[in-house]
Amino acid sequence: MTLLLKLAGSCYKEEVSPRVVDPVARRQHVAEAVFRVVVRDGVEQASLRNVAVEAGLAIGSIRHYFDSHDAMIIFAVEALVDSIGARVLAHVEALSAGEGRPAVRVLSEVLPLDGRRRDEAVLWLAFATAARTRPGLLPHAERLYDGVRFICDKVVRRMVAEGTAAADLDVQLEVERLASLLDGLTVDGVLHPDRMTPELTVSVLERHLGSLR
Amino acid sequence: MTLLLKLAGSCYKEEVSPRVVDPVARRQHVAEAVFRVVVRDGVEQASLRNVAVEAGLAIGSIRHYFDSHDAMIIFAVEALVDSIGARVLAHVEALSAGEGRPAVRVLSEVLPLDGRRRDEAVLWLAFATAARTRPGLLPHAERLYDGVRFICDKVVRRMVAEGTAAADLDVQLEVERLASLLDGLTVDGVLHPDRMTPELTVSVLERHLGSLR
Repeated sequence: MTLLLKLAGSCYKEEVSPRVVDPVARRQHVAEAVFRVVVRDGVEQASLRNVAVEAGLAIGSIRHYFDSHDAMIIFAVEALVDSIGARVLAHVEALSAGEGRPAVRVLSEVLPLDGRRRDEAVLWLAFATAARTRPGLLPHAERLYDGVRFICDKVVRRMVAEGTAAADLDVQLEVERLASLLDGLTVDGVLHPDRMTPELTVSVLERHLGSLR
Repeated sequence: MTLLLKLAGSCYKEEVSPRVVDPVARRQHVAEAVFRVVVRDGVEQASLRNVAVEAGLAIGSIRHYFDSHDAMIIFAVEALVDSIGARVLAHVEALSAGEGRPAVRVLSEVLPLDGRRRDEAVLWLAFATAARTRPGLLPHAERLYDGVRFICDKVVRRMVAEGTAAADLDVQLEVERLASLLDGLTVDGVLHPDRMTPELTVSVLERHLGSLR
């Protein structure tokens, strides 16, 4: 009888609530909950429990999709890297195709100039800072670090090719200088938005690019 | 009888272990424990409990000197600001006295070029990041932000005066650009020390200062 009830219950569940959950969509849904918690309360608050509440899911449901807390955070970081990466790549491809897209517009993709990019920058800083004491996150933070250098390399080489940067520049050193400036503008914009405003951020970047002639 | 025992106990304590604790030294001792916990494990681990263990004190002893967790963290931040500030001020006074101290040496005080300065930079980043979601810390993070701008302002004006920077520079914009570059070099050096090495950090800074002519 108990078995029959169980089977009946099982059949009932199968038919009435098929629970066909798209795992990709569900993981993305969790990643977005991680983002919201980190932006609002900081990365240290992104516990499985808090993320479950934010996502409106049972904690067991999150455990079903992520083996560990680190796995959940890493998935969120990678989703962030992919999101920024896709936009940056579109610009880089345009640069390679010889389109006259201003360098400042390309580089602005990684700067906290509006709500969305500010949230992304907050997430980047939170994850990168957390990676200092959580080695599992480090390779993912490195991807973001490398991404900024990659786009700077494309921009500086393009500027040299089109004559808006001096031909005798030490390109490798200029890439590091530009990338550190972008990282600094991002950190300043995230932590002191009333001081390093979007307008000042763009002015500093324009002055920097202009000085490479 | 009980009262007598208490009095006796009290007298005994007074005489045998006078517990003459220097409050200034004790607070500094706690601040150093905060630093060690933050550098090793991150700012979110700097709970009263963990700091007490690190300092080798009872938690009640820490509560005796600090009203709250925020008060303890703020004291530690201010101790850090004072420590960096004193060194920077010495350099700035030398600049004002017309000493030919190279700008790169002055600015190096705030960069993570050795163990001590790297620890300070780790602390700065941890506290500044925490201040984003803990408004009580913000005025103290602002002091560090202002401090970097202050030293950059002194250096750029000195360079213009001595002719190592162009006379027609937009000094205010150059101060922001230099300060953001320093913040970026600091963050990169703290979070990716194998990539942004002390040698590369100094090369980038030298190139930047050299380009102001």
